Amino acid sequence: MASAVLLLSCPDRRGIVAEVANFILEHDGNVLHADQHVDHLDGVFFQRVEFDLDSFALGRDDIWPAFAPIADRFAMAAVLRFSDDRLPAAFLASRQPHCLDDLLMRWHSGELPCDLRVVISNHDDHAALCESLGVPFRHLPMTPETKPAQDAALLDHLRSYDVELVVLARYMQIVPPSVTAAYANRIINIHHSFLPAFIGANPYRQAHERGVKLIGATAHYATDDLDEGPIIDQETARVTHRDDVARLTRAGRDLETAVLARAVRAHLEHRVLVYGHKTVVF
Amino acid sequence: MASAVLLLSCPDRRGIVAEVANFILEHDGNVLHADQHVDHLDGVFFQRVEFDLDSFALGRDDIWPAFAPIADRFAMAAVLRFSDDRLPAAFLASRQPHCLDDLLMRWHSGELPCDLRVVISNHDDHAALCESLGVPFRHLPMTPETKPAQDAALLDHLRSYDVELVVLARYMQIVPPSVTAAYANRIINIHHSFLPAFIGANPYRQAHERGVKLIGATAHYATDDLDEGPIIDQETARVTHRDDVARLTRAGRDLETAVLARAVRAHLEHRVLVYGHKTVVF
Amino acid sequence: MASAVLLLSCPDRRGIVAEVANFILEHDGNVLHADQHVDHLDGVFFQRVEFDLDSFALGRDDIWPAFAPIADRFAMAAVLRFSDDRLPAAFLASRQPHCLDDLLMRWHSGELPCDLRVVISNHDDHAALCESLGVPFRHLPMTPETKPAQDAALLDHLRSYDVELVVLARYMQIVPPSVTAAYANRIINIHHSFLPAFIGANPYRQAHERGVKLIGATAHYATDDLDEGPIIDQETARVTHRDDVARLTRAGRDLETAVLARAVRAHLEHRVLVYGHKTVVF
Amino acid sequence: MASAVLLLSCPDRRGIVAEVANFILEHDGNVLHADQHVDHLDGVFFQRVEFDLDSFALGRDDIWPAFAPIADRFAMAAVLRFSDDRLPAAFLASRQPHCLDDLLMRWHSGELPCDLRVVISNHDDHAALCESLGVPFRHLPMTPETKPAQDAALLDHLRSYDVELVVLARYMQIVPPSVTAAYANRIINIHHSFLPAFIGANPYRQAHERGVKLIGATAHYATDDLDEGPIIDQETARVTHRDDVARLTRAGRDLETAVLARAVRAHLEHRVLVYGHKTVVF
Repeated sequence: MASAVLLLSCPDRRGIVAEVANFILEHDGNVLHADQHVDHLDGVFFQRVEFDLDSFALGRDDIWPAFAPIADRFAMAAVLRFSDDRLPAAFLASRQPHCLDDLLMRWHSGELPCDLRVVISNHDDHAALCESLGVPFRHLPMTPETKPAQDAALLDHLRSYDVELVVLARYMQIVPPSVTAAYANRIINIHHSFLPAFIGANPYRQAHERGVKLIGATAHYATDDLDEGPIIDQETARVTHRDDVARLTRAGRDLETAVLARAVRAHLEHRVLVYGHKTVVF
Repeated sequence: MASAVLLLSCPDRRGIVAEVANFILEHDGNVLHADQHVDHLDGVFFQRVEFDLDSFALGRDDIWPAFAPIADRFAMAAVLRFSDDRLPAAFLASRQPHCLDDLLMRWHSGELPCDLRVVISNHDDHAALCESLGVPFRHLPMTPETKPAQDAALLDHLRSYDVELVVLARYMQIVPPSVTAAYANRIINIHHSFLPAFIGANPYRQAHERGVKLIGATAHYATDDLDEGPIIDQETARVTHRDDVARLTRAGRDLETAVLARAVRAHLEHRVLVYGHKTVVF
Repeated sequence: MASAVLLLSCPDRRGIVAEVANFILEHDGNVLHADQHVDHLDGVFFQRVEFDLDSFALGRDDIWPAFAPIADRFAMAAVLRFSDDRLPAAFLASRQPHCLDDLLMRWHSGELPCDLRVVISNHDDHAALCESLGVPFRHLPMTPETKPAQDAALLDHLRSYDVELVVLARYMQIVPPSVTAAYANRIINIHHSFLPAFIGANPYRQAHERGVKLIGATAHYATDDLDEGPIIDQETARVTHRDDVARLTRAGRDLETAVLARAVRAHLEHRVLVYGHKTVVF
Repeated sequence: MASAVLLLSCPDRRGIVAEVANFILEHDGNVLHADQHVDHLDGVFFQRVEFDLDSFALGRDDIWPAFAPIADRFAMAAVLRFSDDRLPAAFLASRQPHCLDDLLMRWHSGELPCDLRVVISNHDDHAALCESLGVPFRHLPMTPETKPAQDAALLDHLRSYDVELVVLARYMQIVPPSVTAAYANRIINIHHSFLPAFIGANPYRQAHERGVKLIGATAHYATDDLDEGPIIDQETARVTHRDDVARLTRAGRDLETAVLARAVRAHLEHRVLVYGHKTVVF
């Protein structure tokens, strides 16, 4: 049972909801889910509508041409997706395995609706697991000398695999501006703190030194301004004086894993809209 | 800035969203919030639409007559409310003060948008506080002999104060069928467990004996079938082997207070729809 | 059934647990609860031991003299408290009532084991409620001109009421150094964010602008370095794009209320030890 | 840096803490962590003490003989473990991969301190992953006819691999009494509900029908009395009317995975004591 998803935003004005609803109705569509939001401060309207394709009067290729005049009239940023499309994705990791392993297992069990094209790492620790799962693995070892060349290779790989979503699964290298520019709002990173607390290096050490009673993790779209990209999801967990840096780090790994998986799933299900440096997650 | 809220449910079919959207649009309305849900299993459509009254072309008294034909056509159960209406309410309590005190303070600070008409209790512990807050207090002492007469008095009080919402803030008496019948889906009770676990008496003792690692609280609409009414909200909190029954009870009080307040607020903001023995909380 | 609580910290070395355990054993004491912690990084030992007074061979006044040699030998910072002692307390508030009301109700119902001596505010909004509860209320209206004099009056009030714990229940005035110095580690403040995120003014506005998916509240001991004092407790709650600043603020109020009450209770039950700018909460 | 863990319980009486502390002190031990608990209702004392082996005057094999007289005198149930011992373990699974995959990845990354001897399943879906990780895999297909023989084979496998901990990672077969008897308090099961709510089959369907606002998962020691074994850990997650059975199930999988991993880790770190049908988790 495939469905279509319209994900749109535009300046808020009267009649948008009615217009979209009428469009679907006129073509015998059946709304499965609909969610909308207005940011009254900025005057922006957001909507996600999912409708059944079985009964729909238009073929897949005819939907966008039919909808485009509406999108134009309201100056919409609009995207049309189909639920059985699987976004081509790349997972990037460094040495730490927890986020990558979790994403690989979720993909392997069919839970993450993406077309995993490649895993890329600056270490080769994950090569064997990827091979056993039938996922291409690319090793890009990084030294200060090789980094420029490897960053170029990274972009080449992403392009040659025709990737549409990049997941930084505890990838400890700076992603070069060439990549962040090419994949704006399509790179999901996991930061190991409750941003904006403890930006920068060693957040668990910072958390321990400050004596906080909660630690956190934040999934966000990567931008050149490190740790400042639009936040998709966050979570915290309770800690106590008993938790030294090592235990904070271990507890944090479970948070990072869970939050990153949720954020990736939301993106793959076309439930995230970015505006300014914020997100709407339907 | 007053707004109108349409809260409606009906058999699911095409065109409802468009119809409601067009109705608001045609009368120059501005949708502030809209949320809908379809229970595909039962084929029921639910919607909550909140729209601005300032720009609306119809006066308050003219809205319902204009909307009624739509409600009829779709066989809707529909309610129209205005955001500045304050539901007349009664709070019922027994000896334990935590839920009642919290609700009174929230009402006193203007946070609970209700018109508190009366507090009724089978004990007089709360009389002084009510008096100091200017809230009428009715004492209905209960003994096995007086209960029938007092239950009748209870119904009389609710009627004479023209109450539309009854909150059982740890009211330890059985509410008589005459009252549950007269106020169906308009009596909110707080049960001190994560229903359906630990129904019946002494849930914290039951929880302690079972050795659970979480305790809970459940706010639900009261029905004659005790602990079985439609659930509005629930919450749990972590406990350990260190928590004896007294500590479980104390931790539970904070849960009860928080969950009941949230459920009452959701009801007062016209965000709850009941169907069967379930709720949709928008 | 009164009990005694020993709350102690000292440089970590062998034999402390045995020494304390033997002290209690030799005087026929019965340990009710015991908890210890070692900060291996800083080499500090912490312990909280609660033991029964009924069977204890020493009278209340004789316990400290008997224990003092042990405290000396291990260079302990040690405090002896009795469970039926009720700390003399003052609550300070400004206009917002939620934290103050909650604390007053918890004190009124006997849940907060303190001897509430006075409520002090720079507004007189809370005078009536305090009066109805029989709590002395002092009004210290603040203007830029009167602040120096009123700050002096504040310290005078705290001293004349012989207060041992000051709770800042959303007190929006800067507490003067004279007071923070006199009540070091005895002033509990509630900050309306997950510190160290969003220090400074308007944290809910900051949170909204950053687009976070969680908001938080932090209870900490007040120091002159604003928002930097030792953290006692923290909590977060999930928010979404739907929550504007007003809704964030309202959701935040519930967090602030809950976190502050928990922190005050921990202090009153002699479960908090401060070291450096951190706490151990047993 | 290896350490020793004493995990003990006995009838509560004076002097236990002092005795254990003195034992460690006399042999130049250094307490790393200590935690104790008294169930005053049942009069049972519990303790977990972890101490450094580096400085300890006794060799590993001499510790128990030296401690045994104390254990005898207080009628202790006592266990001595070493932190670098890795319990021999077996993971059992059926078709659903989420819990098994997660445990395998945690073991693979070194996070779960066990010696994984074998994975056993009534389906062969997991054979390839196990092989790629170098874990022996045993396939025991079950039909009503073969179940008795396969149950015997199961016990044989567990014995031949000398297993000390069995983890039921969504193993959908009834574990035979021969196995539960042989591995009392050493089989950890994950139940997909917040026990004792929704015992029996299809808990997510039951949860959906009841209209709960939270779902849960429970890790417990398996006993012959299904769903009644001692609870080790539980967790809940918020759901709404939007979550149909499929979405509840998916959300539940993340809970099951997290709760089972935590419970297994607690067992492997010798932090769980069972008494009656409850646990103390230090």
